[in-house]
Order: sequence, then structure tokens, then C-alpha cells
Amino acid sequence: MKPHHRTLAIAALCATAGGASAQSSVTVFGVIDTALSHLTSGDVSRTQLAPDANTSNRLGFRGTEDLGGGLRAGFWLEAGFAPDDGTGGSTNTNNQTSGAAAAVSGSQGLTFGRKSVVSLGGSWGELRLGRDYVPSFLNLTTAMHPFGTNGVGNAGSLYYPKAFGGTTARTQVRASNSIGYVLPGGLGGFYGQAMVALGENASTAGATRDDGRYQGARLGYRSGPVNIAVASGKTDYATGDYRQSNAGINYQAGPVLLMYLWGSNKVGTSRTVAQMVGTRWRMGQGEWRFAYTRLKATGVANDATHVALGYVHALSKRTALYATYAQIHNKGNGTAFNVGLGVTTPGGTSKGHQVGVRHTF
Amino acid sequence: MKPHHRTLAIAALCATAGGASAQSSVTVFGVIDTALSHLTSGDVSRTQLAPDANTSNRLGFRGTEDLGGGLRAGFWLEAGFAPDDGTGGSTNTNNQTSGAAAAVSGSQGLTFGRKSVVSLGGSWGELRLGRDYVPSFLNLTTAMHPFGTNGVGNAGSLYYPKAFGGTTARTQVRASNSIGYVLPGGLGGFYGQAMVALGENASTAGATRDDGRYQGARLGYRSGPVNIAVASGKTDYATGDYRQSNAGINYQAGPVLLMYLWGSNKVGTSRTVAQMVGTRWRMGQGEWRFAYTRLKATGVANDATHVALGYVHALSKRTALYATYAQIHNKGNGTAFNVGLGVTTPGGTSKGHQVGVRHTF
Amino acid sequence: MKPHHRTLAIAALCATAGGASAQSSVTVFGVIDTALSHLTSGDVSRTQLAPDANTSNRLGFRGTEDLGGGLRAGFWLEAGFAPDDGTGGSTNTNNQTSGAAAAVSGSQGLTFGRKSVVSLGGSWGELRLGRDYVPSFLNLTTAMHPFGTNGVGNAGSLYYPKAFGGTTARTQVRASNSIGYVLPGGLGGFYGQAMVALGENASTAGATRDDGRYQGARLGYRSGPVNIAVASGKTDYATGDYRQSNAGINYQAGPVLLMYLWGSNKVGTSRTVAQMVGTRWRMGQGEWRFAYTRLKATGVANDATHVALGYVHALSKRTALYATYAQIHNKGNGTAFNVGLGVTTPGGTSKGHQVGVRHTF
Repeated sequence: MKPHHRTLAIAALCATAGGASAQSSVTVFGVIDTALSHLTSGDVSRTQLAPDANTSNRLGFRGTEDLGGGLRAGFWLEAGFAPDDGTGGSTNTNNQTSGAAAAVSGSQGLTFGRKSVVSLGGSWGELRLGRDYVPSFLNLTTAMHPFGTNGVGNAGSLYYPKAFGGTTARTQVRASNSIGYVLPGGLGGFYGQAMVALGENASTAGATRDDGRYQGARLGYRSGPVNIAVASGKTDYATGDYRQSNAGINYQAGPVLLMYLWGSNKVGTSRTVAQMVGTRWRMGQGEWRFAYTRLKATGVANDATHVALGYVHALSKRTALYATYAQIHNKGNGTAFNVGLGVTTPGGTSKGHQVGVRHTF
Repeated sequence: MKPHHRTLAIAALCATAGGASAQSSVTVFGVIDTALSHLTSGDVSRTQLAPDANTSNRLGFRGTEDLGGGLRAGFWLEAGFAPDDGTGGSTNTNNQTSGAAAAVSGSQGLTFGRKSVVSLGGSWGELRLGRDYVPSFLNLTTAMHPFGTNGVGNAGSLYYPKAFGGTTARTQVRASNSIGYVLPGGLGGFYGQAMVALGENASTAGATRDDGRYQGARLGYRSGPVNIAVASGKTDYATGDYRQSNAGINYQAGPVLLMYLWGSNKVGTSRTVAQMVGTRWRMGQGEWRFAYTRLKATGVANDATHVALGYVHALSKRTALYATYAQIHNKGNGTAFNVGLGVTTPGGTSKGHQVGVRHTF
Repeated sequence: MKPHHRTLAIAALCATAGGASAQSSVTVFGVIDTALSHLTSGDVSRTQLAPDANTSNRLGFRGTEDLGGGLRAGFWLEAGFAPDDGTGGSTNTNNQTSGAAAAVSGSQGLTFGRKSVVSLGGSWGELRLGRDYVPSFLNLTTAMHPFGTNGVGNAGSLYYPKAFGGTTARTQVRASNSIGYVLPGGLGGFYGQAMVALGENASTAGATRDDGRYQGARLGYRSGPVNIAVASGKTDYATGDYRQSNAGINYQAGPVLLMYLWGSNKVGTSRTVAQMVGTRWRMGQGEWRFAYTRLKATGVANDATHVALGYVHALSKRTALYATYAQIHNKGNGTAFNVGLGVTTPGGTSKGHQVGVRHTF
């Protein structure tokens, strides 16, 4: 989920109409990740080719321009897609349910729903306009969780559970119509960002006028083996505001990265709080991943635990094979959680196995 | 709106199956333009992140091939998108209402609805097949109007008013299924194009058989400080043909470009005629823009005036900041016009402020 | 329909976050093909700008990575589109009717419905995951039919007739959720592939549990002037399995390629069997194409013949002009076939003329 730092620069001379020339660059980049996946939930099971089990699929176009005087402009357009069938990923126009209708099966085209920003940057940081990750999501990525938000081990299962609030809280991952600010480097290890996003309702919308308005921030500190970050965000909804808060800490002990992540999601009076201990353990070309998460729920959902074990084998810097096993055990009769099948008997267990390949370009 | 003349050439060797090789080029290009926008209309207002306020957003792929003997082939595929939320722009398959259904919010994917042509060119001009601008639209761009058809100052507000005819007249900007011819350069300052586009109805369609059939042409002359052009086009509809005609003249006096534009739109018995005087005034890295437009309406719409003032500050050849203010005053109780909010009280005023950034790549 | 062998390599240095670098490549490629087309069927006719009349339109992104030790990884993402209006092509998520809803006119965005695979290859062959051609389709391309599956002469008219089974048999050309294996080169002229694709239904789906599951293979042999291949595939449907089988042989006699193709399609108890004799005859920069096909039908459809004559004139290796004439004569009162208009009076004749330009990039 982190921005890619590799740059495939297509340097070229740009002959303008007036005869002048300037250097330009457009980077075409992406990820393709497909896994054979077997999911069970109670008596139901399904075998499928699944996208995104290690890293989210994407095709993107990005570039930066040096404006001189330390100022730079940039753009980043990134589309999600499902490589098992070729469909694109949809987006949300207003951070509300009304802006997020999915297209019918087979017809969903490519959108820049993963990221769509124009930016201006300098020694003072970076200003971004458009659709982007919300700050309160960023601690749920591989920065603070062994599996990030991908596959059967993904943090999203319990950290921004669709089992409740999923149809209302449209800003669990990203927000549209956002104005974001990102701290510059060189602050002695501190990093962070803040964002305001608009719901764009008319002034005459009454109670729902502020629906879809997001405000949030994240602050982190990285020094030597330690990385720590906290984040929080709130989205207004007339039916009950959505609040997402989390805090994570990493400690790198030789080849072993020890990870702890706390996260809270609140929609109206329903709330879940998750705590995870986990690790990413490098062994030669491979990396073992483990995460154990406990969820306490107040309101409509039940308590649950999530255990995930995975192995990623790098064939190169760009290509890896991987395998993951995970299960979620639901402890009550409330709204239940699952590892991806979308079906869970209350009180039941949901399991998933995935074996796949991930290739970046 | 004008074709970009910059070329980012990705020259490469193309090893064909037979072992031969040839030089190829694909140019990836685009514009990203986002503005903070505040629009009011009567008692209603809305603050939003708006696309296209200075230049229309696009991602495109194009290239040309030298066929020898002065002949060249080319292609141009250009998709529109909204950078505030990442949705793509839709298109129209048959220049009729039936070919232009919009996808539900959040699911509209990228189409090459802005331009999709294959072309053959030579000393005799250029032949184009596909979807392209109609000739009768081209005088409404920045070639003849200070704001072109973008933002709250845009010519489209009064020159191809959606307030009437917008749901019928689907060829106000572009046409699908078109065969176009563009004059070559080197004609002593004369330039122009002609187009026929098909509605593609079956021969048994009766009265609607010719619906969506467009025919139009444009002729211009540029010499020293003077640029003048006239254009006209007609689209057949059983419910009343749509006719678009316009004429513009520019005079460059040092840093000041003086502009006059006349334009008529007619759908059945309803008609609007607009006249604009305006300027683009260069000052160092900046450019001031002003336009005053008067509209006379016959039929369902009312008379109106449109005043727009803007400033564009170039950070580089590719990147600019800009601000625009505009207002439309409706003079009667007929169908009213507005600067973008889509809501206007008859006889009321519609206002808009926009501050944004535009970056080309 | 064959994979393109030209490679537009965008070689570039990839500076990773850690400072290391590696060589990468993304190839942007495509085809744009538009024809003026006049189709008649009984009393109905239509003139239109038609896509795909010589080669299917596409925009793609692909690349390969050398992993060392003879191993390579690759990806191939290919979107179809209609250049006459700019719409994208849709896909199918589960090889069943439920996974293939078309978007409303004008809103269909780009999907990677033509091809979407990640692959691992070596001296042992290539493994592919995702959406790809089914092996049983590959003999219907220009490899074994003069017109391939494009335009009014296309093999699809009678070899995978949509006139019956078209709404059920969703794997006539491609399958989603597929695991494919392709034989390596260097097998003394033998080539081939095999594929299994999943319908991805839940274990509790009962009779339709296996719907959309495809299995098929193809084996060919090429030596000197001879090329021969056989293929067969089966897709499970509770309403009646779909079986597609075919065999083709080519003989290159100087400038003349003699072609014979046999093909069978069976949906439940309905079946069609087609036999084609044809040729591709090179003359200087041009190529004449001729195909005569006889269809025998059992069940709902009638017998039919299909005659097609075409000429393709190469302006370069990348660009060609072409003209095609074809007609289908229906011999009975069953479900009738046509060359593209989608309307045929039982027992009637369907004709088509096309003149177009095809440009690859």
C-alpha cells in the first residue's frame, strides 16, 4: 500500500509548439498479484482465483516536475483492477453511500479510484488535491501490520470491519475531494500528514449537509530500529459519525520485525477495538509473517480473534511467490467477521488458504 | 482544448516476428487540473473540489508513423477523468440521447470519449475516422474565447447552453462515428476542417433514421496579429434539428489579445445568440483574462449576461496556478443559466469562485 | 488475435528506495482499426463506422522480467475498445451469464477483458494465471482462418455462432479465473497449451456449482510449409455443457497459403459443424483473402453458407488499408446467422461490405 519508490523514468525531449523544449517524464507502473484461494466459512466453501492476496493490483501513471527554487509539481493517477477477470475497480465520488454504486458484473471499467492527485511540494512539505488514502488508514498497511490490508491475513478484516459500518463509512481507506498536507523529510525522524475531504453537499441539504466530510491526521517517528505512529480521523454522517483511530509500533531486532497495532472503529454507537501482535521475519530470500489479533466489539458485532501465518519467497526484487493461511473465530452471535468469503455463520469460524504470485512493474 | 503540440517520444526498436525492425513511438500525455470551487445560485451554495476549471483533465495515448512519400498514419486515444474522485468520463455511441447513458456514481470507468481517431495524412491534408471534436465547436475553445470551455467563465455556459437542448443535442462538443477532413498547413494562413458523422440507425427506423447525423465545417484565416474563423454544423433529430454556428476574431496588440465571439444555438424553434468581448493580457509570468457575454434567447430560455475575470500564473510551461470569478445574471423567467451548480432560480444570479492548479504531462 | 511479437521496450533504470537499481520494461502497445461498413439483412440495412473489421482494437501494457536461471516472470494487460465512439470493452467475471452484464450505452469503461495474466516461464514452458484465450478458440484466429474472427468474413459467424448458445456459452473466446500452461519452444515443431478455468461458485450452489468451469487443450505441429493443430474444450453448465472442438491445416505453396478448418460447437443437444476452405494469397504489398464455409446444424439453428472475399494493402508493416465483402445464406427456417447486423429473416441472406484502415502501435 505504500507509494512505490522505484521510478521508471521515460526521459524525453518535449518539443513545444513554439519550438522550445523541456524535459518531461511519465512513469507507467503497476502491480499484478493473483492467488489460488480456498475459503471456508461454516459449511460453505469456494475455490477461486483471487486478486490482491499479497499486494493490491494497480496500473498507474505518475510524474514530477522540478519547478526550480526547491518547488516541484507532481501527479499520480492509479487504477485498481482484478487480474483474474480484467475488471477495473470503482471509486466513490462524495465519501457517502450515494457516491459508491458498483457497476454490474463484468462491466466495471478502470477508474483512478486508488489514487488521483495533483501536488505541489517544497522544503515545507507537500500539498495534495484529489482522491488519496486517509491518514487514519496508513497505520493499517504493511508499515504497521505484517499482512497490511491484503489477503486472508489482512488487517482490514478486523481493523475496518465491513461487518458493520461498511456501507456507511466510506472513508475507511480513502477519501475523494481531499486537500492533504504531508510533512517534509528531514524533521529528525518525524513524519506525518493531515487531510480534510469534502462531501460536497449543497448548503440546502439540511441534516446531511456535512455528510462525507473527513478530517484526520497522522504523526509518526522513526529512529534506528523503532518506528511508531498514531492516527485518527472522523467522517461526518447524519446517521452517526465514523471515527477511525489507531497506533502502531515496530521494533527491528536483526532479521525480526516485532509489530504491535491498536485500532478502533466507531460508527454511531457501535464500536470495535482490535489489538495485534505480529512479526515479519526475514530468512534469506524469504520472509515469514505472523499476526494474532483480538477484537472487542460493542454494539452490533461480536468479539473475534484472527490468526494468520504466511510466507513470501522473493524470486527477485520485483517478483515473489507466497502462501498464507488465516482463520477468524467469532465468539458470539452478533454480526460476524470472515476472511473474505462474505458468509459467516454467527459464532462460526472462517478460514482461508492462498498461494499466489506477485509481480511489480 | 487544442491538441497538445508537445511530444514525448518513446522511440524504440520494434523487433517484428519476422526479424525485421522499425522505429515506433507511443506518446503518453495528459492534463490534471483541480480547483477549490465555491458556487452559489440564489439561496443554494456548494463548496467542492472541481475538475477542469482551467483545462480539461485527460490521459491520452497517441503516435504517428511516417509511411514514406509524404504520407503518415496516426492514432489519438484520449480519456477524460475527474481528478477529485478518480472517475472516468463517459462517451456517446450514436450522437443521440440513447447512446449517452451515464454510469452510476463511482462506477464510471475510463473511455476514450474525448478523442478516438485513426488518421491518414499527407500534403493534401488529413483524414480522420472515429470520435472527435465537431468543427462547429472549435471556435468556442481558447482559440476564440478567453476561458475556452472550462471553469465558471467557460463559453459553454451560454454558447452551447445545456439549459435547453442539452439532452437532445449530443453533438455540441464532439461526435462519434465521424469521418473528418482537416486542411493541410501552408495555405497562406487559411485553415479549417469538415466532418460528417453517422447516427448509425437502421434503414427501418422511420422518422428517426437520420437522428444523430452531423454535418459541419469550419474555415479560418490567421495572418500576423489577426485570427478569424467561422464555423457551422447541423445535427438531424426527428424532434427538431440542432444547429450550431459561430464566428470569432482575435487581434494581438502587444501583450493584449482582443477577442470577439458570436455564436448561435438552435434546437427546433428555440434559439440563443451570444456575443462576447474579452481579452487575454500577458503580464510577466501571468495572464489576466476577462470576458463579457450577452445572450439573447428565443423560445424556452431567458436572456442573460455572463461576466468572468481570471488570472493564470505560470510556474513553468507545464504548471500553473489560477483563480477565476464569474457570474451569470438571468433577465427573465424562462429556463435559466448558471456557472456550474446546476440550480438557478428563474431571474436569479449564479456566481462562482475557483482557485486551482493545472499540470500537463 | 495472435500475441504481438513486436516489442516496444521502454528500458530504464529503476532506482529503488534502497538505492539499488534494476532494469525494467513496460511496453505500451495497441491496435486501432476502423472501417466504413454497410450491412444488409433481408430488408434492413445500416451504414456505420465499425471497429475490429480487420484486427481487434486494443490498448495494452505488458512486460517481462528475467529472474535468472532460465526463469522469467511476465504480465500482460490488454483492454479492448471501440474507436468509432471511444467506449471500452466489457469482460466476464465468472464465465457465466451472471458475470457478463454489459454497461449502458456510452458508459462502458476500459477493462482488461481481452487479456489479464501474470506468468512464470522457463525451459519447461509457461504458467499463466488470469483471463486469457481458451485453447479451443485459438484455431479460429488468422492462424487457421483467412479472416480470423474479425469483420464480415470472420470465423465467429459460423464457428462459435451467437445465434444459439451465445448467451450461455461464455467461454467461446476467453475464460476468466484460468490457470493455463503453454508448451515451450524447441519441441521439434510441436506447440500447444492447456487450461482449466474456475466458475467460482460456492460449494452450496447445488446443480450450478460447476457452472463456468472450463477445461481444454490444443496441440499443433508446424514444419516447413505445413501447420496443423487440433483443439477441444468443455465448459460445465447445469443447463447443458458447452463443447467447442476444431482442427485446422495450412499449406504454404509459394505466395499462396491454402487453409482448411473444421469446427464443432455443441450446447446441450444443439450442435453446429462448420467446414471452411480458404486462402491468403500475397501479391506485392497486398494480400487477397478468400473463405468458403458450410455449416450443418442440428437442433435450433439452420444450415448456412458463408462466402468472404477480402484484400489487405500494407502501407507499412504497421499500417494497412483493406476491403472485405461477405455474405451468409441461411438455408432453412431455424435460428439464422448473419455477418454482423444482428437481424436476419429466417431463410434470408445477410451481406456486408467494409472498407477500413488498421494501424498497430
